[in-house]
Amino acid sequence: MDKRPIGVFDSGVGGLTVVKQVMKVLPNEDIIYFGDTARVPYGSKSKETVKKFSSQIIRFLITKEVKAIIIACNTVSSNCYEELTEEFDIPIIEVVGPGVSSCVSITKNKKVGVIGTEATIRSKAYEKKLKAIDSEISVYSKACPLFVPIAEEGLGESEIAVLTAKEYLKELVQMNIDCIILGCTHYPLLKSCIAKVVGENVKIVDPAMATAQKMKSFLKENNMLNDKKGGDYCFYASDVADNFDSICTTVLNRIYKAKQADIEKY
Amino acid sequence: MDKRPIGVFDSGVGGLTVVKQVMKVLPNEDIIYFGDTARVPYGSKSKETVKKFSSQIIRFLITKEVKAIIIACNTVSSNCYEELTEEFDIPIIEVVGPGVSSCVSITKNKKVGVIGTEATIRSKAYEKKLKAIDSEISVYSKACPLFVPIAEEGLGESEIAVLTAKEYLKELVQMNIDCIILGCTHYPLLKSCIAKVVGENVKIVDPAMATAQKMKSFLKENNMLNDKKGGDYCFYASDVADNFDSICTTVLNRIYKAKQADIEKY
Repeated sequence: MDKRPIGVFDSGVGGLTVVKQVMKVLPNEDIIYFGDTARVPYGSKSKETVKKFSSQIIRFLITKEVKAIIIACNTVSSNCYEELTEEFDIPIIEVVGPGVSSCVSITKNKKVGVIGTEATIRSKAYEKKLKAIDSEISVYSKACPLFVPIAEEGLGESEIAVLTAKEYLKELVQMNIDCIILGCTHYPLLKSCIAKVVGENVKIVDPAMATAQKMKSFLKENNMLNDKKGGDYCFYASDVADNFDSICTTVLNRIYKAKQADIEKY
Repeated sequence: MDKRPIGVFDSGVGGLTVVKQVMKVLPNEDIIYFGDTARVPYGSKSKETVKKFSSQIIRFLITKEVKAIIIACNTVSSNCYEELTEEFDIPIIEVVGPGVSSCVSITKNKKVGVIGTEATIRSKAYEKKLKAIDSEISVYSKACPLFVPIAEEGLGESEIAVLTAKEYLKELVQMNIDCIILGCTHYPLLKSCIAKVVGENVKIVDPAMATAQKMKSFLKENNMLNDKKGGDYCFYASDVADNFDSICTTVLNRIYKAKQADIEKY
Protein backbone atom coordinates (compact mmCIF):
# COMPACT_ATOMS: atom_id res chain seq x y z
CA MET A 1 0.00 0.00 0.00
CA ASP A 2 1.26 3.45 -0.90
CA LYS A 3 -0.43 6.59 0.37
CA ARG A 4 1.48 9.00 -1.87
CA PRO A 5 -0.51 10.87 -4.54
CA ILE A 6 -0.60 10.28 -8.30
CA GLY A 7 0.77 13.14 -10.41
CA VAL A 8 -1.13 14.12 -13.58
CA PHE A 9 0.04 16.82 -15.95
CA ASP A 10 -1.01 18.51 -19.15
CA SER A 11 -0.09 21.53 -21.25
CA GLY A 12 -3.11 23.31 -19.79
CA VAL A 13 -6.63 22.60 -18.61
CA GLY A 14 -7.45 19.84 -21.13
CA GLY A 15 -5.93 17.21 -18.84
CA LEU A 16 -8.82 17.69 -16.44
CA THR A 17 -10.73 15.30 -18.73
CA VAL A 18 -8.16 12.65 -17.72
CA VAL A 19 -8.37 13.61 -14.03
CA LYS A 20 -12.11 13.00 -14.23
CA GLN A 21 -11.55 9.39 -15.33
CA VAL A 22 -8.85 8.81 -12.70
CA MET A 23 -11.25 10.06 -10.02
CA LYS A 24 -13.84 7.53 -11.26
CA VAL A 25 -11.54 4.52 -11.67
CA LEU A 26 -9.32 5.18 -8.62
CA PRO A 27 -11.62 6.97 -6.15
CA ASN A 28 -9.30 6.39 -3.17
CA GLU A 29 -6.21 7.92 -4.75
CA ASP A 30 -4.96 11.45 -4.04
CA ILE A 31 -4.11 13.45 -7.16
CA ILE A 32 -1.68 16.32 -7.74
CA TYR A 33 -2.49 18.02 -11.05
CA PHE A 34 -0.25 20.43 -12.92
CA GLY A 35 -1.47 22.42 -15.97
CA ASP A 36 1.10 24.53 -17.82
CA THR A 37 -1.38 27.34 -18.49
CA ALA A 38 1.40 29.95 -18.83
CA ARG A 39 2.91 28.15 -21.83
CA VAL A 40 -0.12 26.37 -23.35
CA PRO A 41 -0.51 25.20 -26.13
CA TYR A 42 2.24 22.63 -26.73
CA GLY A 43 0.83 21.23 -29.97
CA SER A 44 2.26 23.92 -32.25
CA LYS A 45 5.72 23.84 -30.66
CA SER A 46 8.88 21.84 -31.37
CA LYS A 47 9.75 18.52 -29.79
CA GLU A 48 12.75 20.07 -27.97
CA THR A 49 10.61 22.75 -26.34
CA VAL A 50 7.89 20.26 -25.37
CA LYS A 51 10.51 17.93 -23.86
CA LYS A 52 12.12 20.73 -21.86
CA PHE A 53 8.77 21.92 -20.45
CA SER A 54 7.76 18.33 -19.57
CA SER A 55 11.02 17.66 -17.70
CA GLN A 56 10.46 20.78 -15.61
CA ILE A 57 6.95 19.60 -14.74
CA ILE A 58 8.08 16.09 -13.76
CA ARG A 59 10.78 17.60 -11.50
CA PHE A 60 8.05 19.75 -9.93
CA LEU A 61 5.75 16.75 -9.38
CA ILE A 62 8.60 14.76 -7.83
CA THR A 63 9.01 17.52 -5.21
CA LYS A 64 5.35 16.81 -4.34
CA GLU A 65 6.31 13.17 -3.62
CA VAL A 66 4.05 11.52 -6.17
CA LYS A 67 4.29 7.74 -6.53
CA ALA A 68 3.60 7.65 -10.28
CA ILE A 69 2.82 10.11 -13.07
CA ILE A 70 0.23 10.23 -15.85
CA ILE A 71 1.16 12.31 -18.88
CA ALA A 72 -2.35 13.43 -19.83
CA CYS A 73 -1.05 15.47 -22.77
CA ASN A 74 -1.05 13.66 -26.11
CA THR A 75 1.60 15.98 -27.55
CA VAL A 76 4.01 15.05 -24.74
CA SER A 77 3.01 11.36 -24.81
CA SER A 78 3.58 11.05 -28.54
CA ASN A 79 6.78 13.10 -28.78
CA CYS A 80 8.76 12.63 -25.56
CA TYR A 81 7.59 9.56 -23.62
CA GLU A 82 10.70 7.45 -24.22
CA GLU A 83 13.11 10.30 -23.38
CA LEU A 84 11.20 11.11 -20.21
CA THR A 85 11.20 7.50 -18.97
CA GLU A 86 14.97 7.42 -19.60
CA GLU A 87 15.51 10.68 -17.73
CA PHE A 88 13.39 9.84 -14.68
CA ASP A 89 13.16 6.76 -12.44
CA ILE A 90 9.55 7.32 -11.40
CA PRO A 91 6.83 5.19 -13.09
CA ILE A 92 5.23 7.17 -15.94
CA ILE A 93 2.09 6.24 -17.85
CA GLU A 94 1.14 7.97 -21.09
CA VAL A 95 -2.10 8.15 -23.10
CA VAL A 96 -1.24 6.91 -26.61
CA GLY A 97 -0.80 3.19 -25.77
CA PRO A 98 -4.10 2.90 -23.85
CA GLY A 99 -5.92 4.84 -26.62
CA VAL A 100 -4.52 2.46 -29.23
CA SER A 101 -5.55 -0.65 -27.23
CA SER A 102 -9.13 0.63 -26.91
CA CYS A 103 -9.30 1.41 -30.60
CA VAL A 104 -7.98 -1.99 -31.73
CA SER A 105 -10.69 -3.74 -29.71
CA ILE A 106 -13.41 -1.52 -31.23
CA THR A 107 -12.67 -1.23 -34.96
CA LYS A 108 -14.32 -3.83 -37.21
CA ASN A 109 -13.40 -2.63 -40.69
CA LYS A 110 -9.84 -1.72 -39.59
CA LYS A 111 -10.14 1.85 -40.88
CA VAL A 112 -9.25 4.21 -38.07
CA GLY A 113 -9.14 8.01 -37.84
CA VAL A 114 -6.76 9.86 -35.49
CA ILE A 115 -7.09 13.56 -34.71
CA GLY A 116 -4.73 15.65 -32.57
CA THR A 117 -2.43 18.66 -32.48
CA GLU A 118 0.12 19.30 -35.20
CA ALA A 119 2.94 17.89 -33.03
CA THR A 120 0.98 14.72 -32.16
CA ILE A 121 0.07 13.99 -35.78
CA ARG A 122 3.60 14.84 -37.00
CA SER A 123 5.06 12.28 -34.54
CA LYS A 124 3.01 9.43 -36.11
CA ALA A 125 2.94 7.85 -32.62
CA TYR A 126 -0.66 6.61 -32.90
CA GLU A 127 -0.09 5.29 -36.42
CA LYS A 128 3.06 3.37 -35.45
CA LYS A 129 1.47 1.80 -32.35
CA LEU A 130 -1.72 0.84 -34.21
CA LYS A 131 0.28 -0.79 -37.04
CA ALA A 132 2.55 -2.57 -34.54
CA ILE A 133 -0.49 -4.33 -33.06
CA ASP A 134 -2.28 -4.98 -36.34
CA SER A 135 -0.50 -4.21 -39.59
CA GLU A 136 -3.78 -4.50 -41.52
CA ILE A 137 -5.21 -1.38 -39.87
CA SER A 138 -5.36 1.68 -42.13
CA VAL A 139 -4.80 4.92 -40.23
CA TYR A 140 -6.07 8.30 -41.43
CA SER A 141 -4.64 11.19 -39.42
CA LYS A 142 -5.55 14.87 -39.29
CA ALA A 143 -4.19 17.75 -37.22
CA CYS A 144 -6.99 19.99 -35.92
CA PRO A 145 -5.20 22.92 -34.24
CA LEU A 146 -8.25 25.19 -33.95
CA PHE A 147 -10.04 22.66 -31.71
CA VAL A 148 -7.92 23.62 -28.66
CA PRO A 149 -8.71 27.35 -28.71
CA ILE A 150 -12.36 26.58 -29.57
CA ALA A 151 -12.56 24.36 -26.45
CA GLU A 152 -10.77 26.91 -24.28
CA GLU A 153 -13.18 29.60 -25.54
CA GLY A 154 -16.12 27.49 -24.39
CA LEU A 155 -17.33 27.29 -28.03
CA GLY A 156 -17.27 23.47 -28.22
CA GLU A 157 -20.92 23.25 -29.23
CA SER A 158 -21.15 26.39 -31.36
CA GLU A 159 -21.81 26.76 -35.09
CA ILE A 160 -18.14 27.77 -35.51
CA ALA A 161 -17.09 24.44 -33.95
CA VAL A 162 -19.36 22.47 -36.31
CA LEU A 163 -18.09 24.30 -39.41
CA THR A 164 -14.46 23.86 -38.31
CA ALA A 165 -15.04 20.17 -37.59
CA LYS A 166 -16.63 19.68 -41.03
CA GLU A 167 -13.59 21.30 -42.65
CA TYR A 168 -11.07 19.23 -40.67
CA LEU A 169 -12.87 15.89 -40.77
CA LYS A 170 -14.23 15.76 -44.32
CA GLU A 171 -11.42 13.54 -45.62
CA LEU A 172 -11.65 11.12 -42.67
CA VAL A 173 -15.41 10.78 -43.22
CA GLN A 174 -14.85 9.96 -46.91
CA MET A 175 -12.42 7.19 -45.91
CA ASN A 176 -15.25 5.20 -44.33
CA ILE A 177 -13.54 4.97 -40.89
CA ASP A 178 -15.55 3.17 -38.18
CA CYS A 179 -13.58 4.54 -35.23
CA ILE A 180 -11.89 7.88 -34.40
CA ILE A 181 -9.35 8.49 -31.62
CA LEU A 182 -9.55 11.85 -29.82
CA GLY A 183 -5.78 12.31 -29.65
CA CYS A 184 -5.87 15.50 -27.57
CA THR A 185 -7.21 16.04 -24.04
CA HIS A 186 -9.20 19.08 -25.17
CA TYR A 187 -11.20 17.22 -27.80
CA PRO A 188 -13.69 15.54 -25.42
CA LEU A 189 -14.98 19.11 -24.95
CA LEU A 190 -16.03 19.01 -28.64
CA LYS A 191 -17.28 15.42 -28.53
CA SER A 192 -20.92 16.06 -29.44
CA CYS A 193 -19.90 18.32 -32.31
CA ILE A 194 -17.40 15.73 -33.63
CA ALA A 195 -20.05 12.99 -33.28
CA LYS A 196 -22.48 15.05 -35.35
CA VAL A 197 -19.93 15.49 -38.14
CA VAL A 198 -18.58 11.90 -38.32
CA GLY A 199 -22.03 10.31 -37.98
CA GLU A 200 -23.40 7.66 -35.64
CA ASN A 201 -21.60 4.75 -37.31
CA VAL A 202 -18.21 6.04 -36.18
CA LYS A 203 -17.23 5.14 -32.61
CA ILE A 204 -15.38 7.84 -30.69
CA VAL A 205 -12.41 6.69 -28.57
CA ASP A 206 -11.24 8.92 -25.72
CA PRO A 207 -7.95 7.45 -24.34
CA ALA A 208 -8.61 8.91 -20.87
CA MET A 209 -10.62 5.97 -19.48
CA ALA A 210 -8.15 3.31 -20.70
CA THR A 211 -5.29 5.38 -19.29
CA ALA A 212 -6.91 5.51 -15.86
CA GLN A 213 -7.47 1.73 -16.04
CA LYS A 214 -3.82 1.21 -16.93
CA MET A 215 -2.75 3.21 -13.88
CA LYS A 216 -5.09 1.10 -11.74
CA SER A 217 -3.56 -2.16 -13.05
CA PHE A 218 -0.06 -0.83 -12.50
CA LEU A 219 -0.75 0.21 -8.89
CA LYS A 220 -2.50 -3.10 -8.16
CA GLU A 221 0.31 -5.25 -9.58
CA ASN A 222 2.88 -3.33 -7.59
CA ASN A 223 0.92 -3.19 -4.33
CA MET A 224 0.81 0.58 -4.56
CA LEU A 225 -2.93 1.25 -4.26
CA ASN A 226 -4.04 3.63 -1.53
CA ASP A 227 -6.23 1.80 1.01
CA LYS A 228 -7.95 4.82 2.58
CA LYS A 229 -11.45 6.02 1.62
CA GLY A 230 -11.85 8.93 -0.80
CA GLY A 231 -9.29 11.07 -2.58
CA ASP A 232 -7.73 14.49 -1.96
CA TYR A 233 -7.09 16.66 -4.95
CA CYS A 234 -4.62 19.47 -5.39
CA PHE A 235 -4.35 21.57 -8.55
CA TYR A 236 -1.39 23.66 -9.69
CA ALA A 237 -1.06 25.86 -12.76
CA SER A 238 1.79 28.00 -14.11
CA ASP A 239 -0.68 30.83 -14.77
CA VAL A 240 -3.87 31.16 -12.79
CA ALA A 241 -6.29 32.68 -15.29
CA ASP A 242 -10.09 32.62 -15.27
CA ASN A 243 -10.56 29.77 -17.69
CA PHE A 244 -9.13 27.22 -15.24
CA ASP A 245 -12.20 27.76 -13.08
CA SER A 246 -14.68 27.64 -15.93
CA ILE A 247 -13.25 24.51 -17.58
CA CYS A 248 -12.92 22.89 -14.14
CA THR A 249 -16.65 23.49 -13.64
CA THR A 250 -17.50 22.10 -17.10
CA VAL A 251 -15.37 18.96 -16.71
CA LEU A 252 -15.41 18.15 -12.99
CA ASN A 253 -18.72 19.82 -12.09
CA ARG A 254 -17.08 21.94 -9.40
CA ILE A 255 -14.35 24.51 -8.99
CA TYR A 256 -11.03 23.44 -7.50
CA LYS A 257 -8.91 26.55 -6.95
CA ALA A 258 -5.52 26.13 -8.64
CA LYS A 259 -2.36 27.25 -6.87
CA GLN A 260 0.31 28.98 -8.89
CA ALA A 261 3.66 27.23 -9.42
CA ASP A 262 6.73 28.95 -10.87
CA ILE A 263 7.56 26.12 -13.23
CA GLU A 264 10.59 27.71 -14.93
CA LYS A 265 12.58 27.23 -11.73
CA TYR A 266 12.41 23.44 -11.90
CA MET B 1 23.87 59.27 -34.85
CA ASP B 2 23.52 55.87 -33.26
CA LYS B 3 24.39 52.69 -35.12
CA ARG B 4 22.88 50.30 -32.58
CA PRO B 5 19.86 48.25 -33.65
CA ILE B 6 16.21 48.71 -32.68
CA GLY B 7 14.70 45.84 -30.67
CA VAL B 8 11.18 44.67 -31.55
CA PHE B 9 9.36 41.95 -29.65
CA ASP B 10 6.07 40.11 -29.68
CA SER B 11 4.45 37.07 -28.10
CA GLY B 12 5.08 35.20 -31.35
CA VAL B 13 5.19 35.79 -35.06
CA GLY B 14 2.41 38.42 -35.24
CA GLY B 15 4.91 41.20 -34.53
CA LEU B 16 6.41 40.65 -37.97
CA THR B 17 3.56 42.89 -39.23
CA VAL B 18 5.14 45.68 -37.13
CA VAL B 19 8.66 44.83 -38.36
CA LYS B 20 7.37 45.25 -41.91
CA GLN B 21 6.31 48.85 -41.19
CA VAL B 22 9.58 49.65 -39.37
CA MET B 23 11.52 48.38 -42.40
CA LYS B 24 9.48 50.74 -44.61
CA VAL B 25 9.60 53.82 -42.40
CA LEU B 26 13.18 53.39 -41.12
CA PRO B 27 14.98 51.57 -43.96
CA ASN B 28 18.47 52.34 -42.60
CA GLU B 29 17.91 50.91 -39.15
CA ASP B 30 19.10 47.48 -38.03
CA ILE B 31 16.43 45.40 -36.24
CA ILE B 32 16.70 42.64 -33.66
CA TYR B 33 13.39 40.79 -33.42
CA PHE B 34 12.34 38.42 -30.67
CA GLY B 35 9.18 36.29 -30.90
CA ASP B 36 8.20 34.24 -27.84
CA THR B 37 7.00 31.30 -29.91
CA ALA B 38 7.59 28.81 -27.06
CA ARG B 39 5.05 30.58 -24.82
CA VAL B 40 2.65 32.14 -27.35
CA PRO B 41 -0.17 33.20 -26.98
CA TYR B 42 -0.08 35.88 -24.27
CA GLY B 43 -3.66 37.11 -24.75
CA SER B 44 -5.30 34.41 -22.64
CA LYS B 45 -2.80 34.69 -19.77
CA SER B 46 -2.66 36.81 -16.61
CA LYS B 47 -1.06 40.23 -16.35
CA GLU B 48 1.59 38.88 -13.93
CA THR B 49 2.68 36.16 -16.35
CA VAL B 50 2.73 38.55 -19.33
CA LYS B 51 4.80 41.06 -17.32
CA LYS B 52 7.31 38.40 -16.26
CA PHE B 53 7.75 37.10 -19.82
CA SER B 54 8.15 40.66 -21.17
CA SER B 55 10.83 41.56 -18.61
CA GLN B 56 12.83 38.49 -19.63
CA ILE B 57 12.61 39.54 -23.28
CA ILE B 58 13.71 43.12 -22.60
CA ARG B 59 16.69 41.81 -20.61
CA PHE B 60 17.53 39.59 -23.59
CA LEU B 61 17.27 42.51 -26.07
CA ILE B 62 19.46 44.69 -23.84
CA THR B 63 22.22 42.05 -24.10
CA LYS B 64 21.98 42.59 -27.89
CA GLU B 65 22.79 46.30 -27.30
CA VAL B 66 19.61 47.74 -28.79
CA LYS B 67 19.17 51.54 -28.57
CA ALA B 68 15.37 51.45 -28.18
CA ILE B 69 12.59 48.87 -28.05
CA ILE B 70 9.21 48.54 -29.73
CA ILE B 71 6.66 46.41 -27.89
CA ALA B 72 4.80 45.09 -30.95
CA CYS B 73 2.45 43.01 -28.80
CA ASN B 74 -0.84 44.71 -27.91
CA THR B 75 -1.35 42.45 -24.88
CA VAL B 76 1.98 43.60 -23.39
CA SER B 77 1.45 47.23 -24.45
CA SER B 78 -1.98 47.45 -22.87
CA ASN B 79 -1.20 45.53 -19.66
CA CYS B 80 2.43 46.21 -18.70
CA TYR B 81 3.82 49.28 -20.48
CA GLU B 82 4.03 51.52 -17.39
CA GLU B 83 5.63 48.81 -15.23
CA LEU B 84 8.19 48.01 -17.93
CA THR B 85 9.19 51.66 -18.40
CA GLU B 86 9.65 51.90 -14.63
CA GLU B 87 11.76 48.74 -14.53
CA PHE B 88 14.05 49.57 -17.48
CA ASP B 89 15.97 52.72 -18.43
CA ILE B 90 15.97 52.03 -22.17
CA PRO B 91 13.49 53.97 -24.37
CA ILE B 92 10.39 51.82 -25.01
CA ILE B 93 7.62 52.55 -27.51
CA GLU B 94 4.34 50.67 -27.43
CA VAL B 95 1.50 50.27 -29.95
CA VAL B 96 -1.68 51.42 -28.18
CA GLY B 97 -0.91 55.19 -28.13
CA PRO B 98 -0.03 55.38 -31.84
CA GLY B 99 -3.09 53.28 -32.73
CA VAL B 100 -5.32 55.62 -30.74
CA SER B 101 -3.84 58.75 -32.39
CA SER B 102 -4.50 57.30 -35.87
CA CYS B 103 -8.02 56.38 -34.95
CA VAL B 104 -8.90 59.80 -33.49
CA SER B 105 -7.82 61.49 -36.73
CA ILE B 106 -9.92 59.10 -38.82
CA THR B 107 -13.29 58.72 -37.04
CA LYS B 108 -16.03 61.16 -38.07
CA ASN B 109 -19.05 59.87 -36.16
CA LYS B 110 -16.95 59.18 -33.04
CA LYS B 111 -18.09 55.55 -32.84
CA VAL B 112 -15.05 53.34 -32.68
CA GLY B 113 -14.60 49.57 -32.51
CA VAL B 114 -11.61 47.91 -30.83
CA ILE B 115 -10.78 44.23 -31.25
CA GLY B 116 -7.96 42.35 -29.52
CA THR B 117 -7.07 39.44 -27.25
CA GLU B 118 -8.92 38.83 -24.00
CA ALA B 119 -6.13 40.44 -21.96
CA THR B 120 -6.01 43.53 -24.19
CA ILE B 121 -9.76 44.10 -24.06
CA ARG B 122 -9.90 43.37 -20.31
CA SER B 123 -7.24 46.07 -19.69
CA LYS B 124 -9.45 48.78 -21.31
CA ALA B 125 -6.19 50.46 -22.43
CA TYR B 126 -7.55 51.52 -25.84
CA GLU B 127 -10.81 52.74 -24.33
CA LYS B 128 -9.08 54.85 -21.67
CA LYS B 129 -6.64 56.45 -24.12
CA LEU B 130 -9.35 57.18 -26.69
CA LYS B 131 -11.59 58.79 -24.04
CA ALA B 132 -8.64 60.77 -22.63
CA ILE B 133 -8.15 62.45 -26.03
CA ASP B 134 -11.84 62.90 -26.84
CA SER B 135 -14.41 62.10 -24.18
CA GLU B 136 -17.20 62.17 -26.79
CA ILE B 137 -15.89 59.05 -28.51
CA SER B 138 -17.94 55.90 -27.89
CA VAL B 139 -15.81 52.77 -27.79
CA TYR B 140 -17.18 49.28 -28.54
CA SER B 141 -14.70 46.56 -27.64
CA LYS B 142 -14.66 42.85 -28.41
CA ALA B 143 -12.17 40.11 -27.60
CA CYS B 144 -11.62 37.78 -30.59
CA PRO B 145 -9.36 34.99 -29.23
CA LEU B 146 -9.84 32.61 -32.17
CA PHE B 147 -8.32 35.13 -34.61
CA VAL B 148 -4.76 34.39 -33.42
CA PRO B 149 -4.85 30.61 -34.04
CA ILE B 150 -6.74 31.18 -37.32
CA ALA B 151 -3.94 33.50 -38.47
CA GLU B 152 -1.23 31.11 -37.29
CA GLU B 153 -3.00 28.27 -39.14
CA GLY B 154 -2.83 30.28 -42.37
CA LEU B 155 -6.66 30.29 -42.48
CA GLY B 156 -7.00 34.11 -42.50
CA GLU B 157 -9.02 34.12 -45.72
CA SER B 158 -10.98 30.90 -45.22
CA GLU B 159 -14.71 30.36 -44.77
CA ILE B 160 -14.02 29.52 -41.09
CA ALA B 161 -12.41 32.95 -40.65
CA VAL B 162 -15.39 34.72 -42.22
CA LEU B 163 -17.91 32.85 -40.05
CA THR B 164 -15.85 33.50 -36.91
CA ALA B 165 -15.49 37.18 -37.80
CA LYS B 166 -19.27 37.46 -38.35
CA GLU B 167 -19.88 35.94 -34.93
CA TYR B 168 -17.36 38.18 -33.14
CA LEU B 169 -18.12 41.43 -34.98
CA LYS B 170 -21.93 41.38 -35.25
CA GLU B 171 -22.46 43.68 -32.27
CA LEU B 172 -19.83 46.19 -33.42
CA VAL B 173 -21.43 46.33 -36.86
CA GLN B 174 -24.83 47.04 -35.31
CA MET B 175 -23.31 49.96 -33.37
CA ASN B 176 -22.68 51.85 -36.60
CA ILE B 177 -18.93 52.29 -35.97
CA ASP B 178 -16.99 54.09 -38.72
CA CYS B 179 -13.55 52.91 -37.62
CA ILE B 180 -12.11 49.69 -36.13
CA ILE B 181 -8.70 49.29 -34.46
CA LEU B 182 -6.87 46.00 -35.06
CA GLY B 183 -5.62 45.72 -31.46
CA CYS B 184 -3.49 42.60 -32.04
CA THR B 185 -0.50 42.13 -34.33
CA HIS B 186 -1.99 38.96 -35.79
CA TYR B 187 -5.16 40.63 -37.02
CA PRO B 188 -3.66 42.26 -40.14
CA LEU B 189 -3.43 38.67 -41.40
CA LEU B 190 -7.26 38.59 -41.35
CA LYS B 191 -7.69 42.13 -42.70
CA SER B 192 -9.55 41.28 -45.91
CA CYS B 193 -11.91 38.98 -44.02
CA ILE B 194 -12.58 41.64 -41.34
CA ALA B 195 -13.13 44.26 -44.08
CA LYS B 196 -15.71 42.01 -45.74
CA VAL B 197 -17.63 41.60 -42.49
CA VAL B 198 -17.59 45.23 -41.26
CA GLY B 199 -18.30 46.67 -44.73
CA GLU B 200 -16.59 49.33 -46.79
CA ASN B 201 -17.80 52.26 -44.71
CA VAL B 202 -15.70 51.17 -41.73
CA LYS B 203 -12.04 52.25 -41.85
CA ILE B 204 -9.54 49.68 -40.52
CA VAL B 205 -6.74 51.05 -38.33
CA ASP B 206 -3.55 48.98 -37.93
CA PRO B 207 -1.38 50.65 -35.23
CA ALA B 208 1.83 49.29 -36.81
CA MET B 209 2.44 52.17 -39.24
CA ALA B 210 1.86 54.90 -36.62
CA THR B 211 4.12 53.00 -34.19
CA ALA B 212 6.95 52.90 -36.74
CA GLN B 213 6.44 56.65 -37.36
CA LYS B 214 6.61 57.31 -33.62
CA MET B 215 9.92 55.47 -33.38
CA LYS B 216 11.21 57.54 -36.32
CA SER B 217 10.24 60.82 -34.61
CA PHE B 218 11.82 59.68 -31.36
CA LEU B 219 15.14 58.73 -33.00
CA LYS B 220 15.20 61.98 -35.01
CA GLU B 221 14.53 64.21 -32.00
CA ASN B 222 17.27 62.47 -30.03
CA ASN B 223 19.83 62.35 -32.84
CA MET B 224 19.75 58.56 -32.73
CA LEU B 225 19.01 57.73 -36.39
CA ASN B 226 21.41 55.40 -38.15
CA ASP B 227 23.16 57.21 -41.05
CA LYS B 228 24.31 54.16 -43.02
CA LYS B 229 22.45 52.78 -46.07
CA GLY B 230 20.16 49.77 -45.65
CA GLY B 231 19.24 47.70 -42.62
CA ASP B 232 20.44 44.39 -41.18
CA TYR B 233 17.84 42.14 -39.62
CA CYS B 234 18.26 39.44 -37.05
CA PHE B 235 15.41 37.25 -35.80
CA TYR B 236 15.26 35.27 -32.57
CA ALA B 237 12.51 32.98 -31.30
CA SER B 238 12.12 30.94 -28.11
CA ASP B 239 10.93 27.98 -30.19
CA VAL B 240 11.93 27.57 -33.79
CA ALA B 241 8.95 25.84 -35.37
CA ASP B 242 7.87 25.73 -39.01
CA ASN B 243 5.26 28.46 -38.87
CA PHE B 244 7.91 31.16 -38.29
CA ASP B 245 9.13 30.56 -41.83
CA SER B 246 5.67 30.46 -43.37
CA ILE B 247 4.37 33.61 -41.64
CA CYS B 248 7.68 35.35 -42.39
CA THR B 249 7.11 34.60 -46.06
CA THR B 250 3.50 35.82 -45.92
CA VAL B 251 4.34 39.07 -44.11
CA LEU B 252 7.86 40.00 -45.25
CA ASN B 253 7.84 38.20 -48.62
CA ARG B 254 10.98 36.26 -47.75
CA ILE B 255 12.28 33.82 -45.15
CA TYR B 256 14.59 35.10 -42.44
CA LYS B 257 15.88 32.12 -40.45
CA ALA B 258 15.20 32.64 -36.75
CA LYS B 259 17.86 31.73 -34.18
CA GLN B 260 16.75 30.06 -30.98
CA ALA B 261 17.11 31.96 -27.69
CA ASP B 262 16.68 30.33 -24.28
CA ILE B 263 14.51 33.12 -22.89
CA GLU B 264 13.82 31.59 -19.46
CA LYS B 265 17.44 32.28 -18.51
CA TYR B 266 17.05 36.06 -18.76
